[in-house]
Amino acid sequence: MEKININEKLNLFSEHWSPKIVGALNGQHVKLAKFQGEFVWHKHEHEDELFYVLDGEFNMEFRDQTINLKTGEFIIVPKNTEHRPVAPKEVSVLLFEPASTLNTGNKKDDTFTKEKQEWI
Amino acid sequence: MEKININEKLNLFSEHWSPKIVGALNGQHVKLAKFQGEFVWHKHEHEDELFYVLDGEFNMEFRDQTINLKTGEFIIVPKNTEHRPVAPKEVSVLLFEPASTLNTGNKKDDTFTKEKQEWI
Repeated sequence: MEKININEKLNLFSEHWSPKIVGALNGQHVKLAKFQGEFVWHKHEHEDELFYVLDGEFNMEFRDQTINLKTGEFIIVPKNTEHRPVAPKEVSVLLFEPASTLNTGNKKDDTFTKEKQEWI
Repeated sequence: MEKININEKLNLFSEHWSPKIVGALNGQHVKLAKFQGEFVWHKHEHEDELFYVLDGEFNMEFRDQTINLKTGEFIIVPKNTEHRPVAPKEVSVLLFEPASTLNTGNKKDDTFTKEKQEWI
């Protein structure tokens, strides 16, 4: 059993839109990601997804509204809800979601989809 | 759908050892708690439990070691592992665990057990 220091883990990678797994419990994964720019519109059919801002801010776009999230704020996106994160500047985010969750959900994208998510 | 600001939620309560629910996803709860002093030794038969330090520090005691956790660090305590959080000073903690999780696990305690956990 080891503790995890989030800042140390964030220093291990620089890619955007490429979540890294840092913990697993009860069939769920804890992931860290850095966002910058516009992601793709997508939804997850079976998985709710939590986004917690560690440092910075981004906009979570939905079809009917946009929610701005700043450091210390989180949102839970329910399954089957189309969403698109957009980050004007780089932001560090913690994700909590089922181990089965693919980052682009129902939308396979040559640039963004990461079939194999890495542990760090 | 609403975003949650963690500091705003932390300002809503002051009791120690009384986790408050601030989110639910995939059968799991996100909870906030304030610890101060010594909790009771206990374990959870079926639930892994994540403790993430938001502000402050505490010691997670296990039967064979103690792990000190500071702001920005987390630990996942596997099911069936006896543990006891001890906080010399007040510390704010985020918990991720199944919705079924009772705070004192297998140990019913008149002082510490909270059968009914409140949403804030």
